[in-house]
Amino acid sequence: MTDTNGTRSGRRPGNSGTKEAILDAARTRFAAVGFVKASIRSIASAAGVDPALVHHYFGTKHELFAAALKLPIDPNDILSRFRTVPVEELGETIVRTVVTIWDSPLGVPVVAAFRGLLLGDDPALARTFLLEIVLKEIQPRVDSPPGTGAKRAALAASQLAGLFLTRKILHLEPIASMPADELAATVGPTLQRYFTGDLPLQD
Amino acid sequence: MTDTNGTRSGRRPGNSGTKEAILDAARTRFAAVGFVKASIRSIASAAGVDPALVHHYFGTKHELFAAALKLPIDPNDILSRFRTVPVEELGETIVRTVVTIWDSPLGVPVVAAFRGLLLGDDPALARTFLLEIVLKEIQPRVDSPPGTGAKRAALAASQLAGLFLTRKILHLEPIASMPADELAATVGPTLQRYFTGDLPLQD
Repeated sequence: MTDTNGTRSGRRPGNSGTKEAILDAARTRFAAVGFVKASIRSIASAAGVDPALVHHYFGTKHELFAAALKLPIDPNDILSRFRTVPVEELGETIVRTVVTIWDSPLGVPVVAAFRGLLLGDDPALARTFLLEIVLKEIQPRVDSPPGTGAKRAALAASQLAGLFLTRKILHLEPIASMPADELAATVGPTLQRYFTGDLPLQD
Repeated sequence: MTDTNGTRSGRRPGNSGTKEAILDAARTRFAAVGFVKASIRSIASAAGVDPALVHHYFGTKHELFAAALKLPIDPNDILSRFRTVPVEELGETIVRTVVTIWDSPLGVPVVAAFRGLLLGDDPALARTFLLEIVLKEIQPRVDSPPGTGAKRAALAASQLAGLFLTRKILHLEPIASMPADELAATVGPTLQRYFTGDLPLQD
């Protein structure tokens, strides 16, 4: 393994091995206890390194999570775009944004990472990602009447996950070839209804 | 391997081996050329057996397809229930029916088969199943205005596939615990809009 950091010779070898050990520990820990409860300290301890080294290599806990999932972007960078969108435009904006990312050059590693995440043997990491990163961000914005936010956000996730599966994994036509605009206009209202529609939810 | 047919001793051994060879040939052929174009004759030929033996072991081509996909039921048995449902009730009926099957004792092997189909390394078999079995059945019923049926059916498939992924594979809460009735009432209208709604589809 090579040290990709370009550090001077003289430092101990095996930086990439240390990084991999940290990422392995992070994946295990995030899957076991979730994003919020997994501390940098516990991940560092499991990897046998100092917590400061984890921060030095990977930055914030969000950035460490993205690296552990092999996401080429920090999901927070995407989710932050949705914070200022009026809630009544959230459905169409989310569909247009994620489809545009999937279809971009950046989409190749994103699709590979999501594929591994959604279709891997351990669904715990995927649940952690969806519940504690993606849905946690959306849920409080759509919690009206109070208490409905979790179901609203999860229903939207079910449509988005299926759009991803049919378009990017199965390449199912005609959905695989529909332009992002057309998907935003047809699938966006589905998310919007889940977010703000009058749903017959049970207590 | 044991002969599970209870045939008398004296017949040549290896029936289950022959069956497996037929199923392997069927999977390969269905994935390569699709359901309609894959003939029983070509599958028999690839397996090195007589076409009559394929029919003897597996029945119709639909039944052979179900066996090749390890589906515990002939998908035609489910799809036939949708033939007589009024088109304006199709969305809710489909969601209620498939969720009830997924959650039933029969659902365990169904979920395992779908999981292997949707998440396997070769998406061709999954595309064949969705396009030539499931969507082919629904598409002509929702082709209004003419030419929109393929997109309408595929959009519905995207929502159903995502519901399956989040509920049965990822076990994402609260969607994993929502009763079939509640899902029929909340997700059913999504399918219904895709089937018969005024969608802004592009040519």
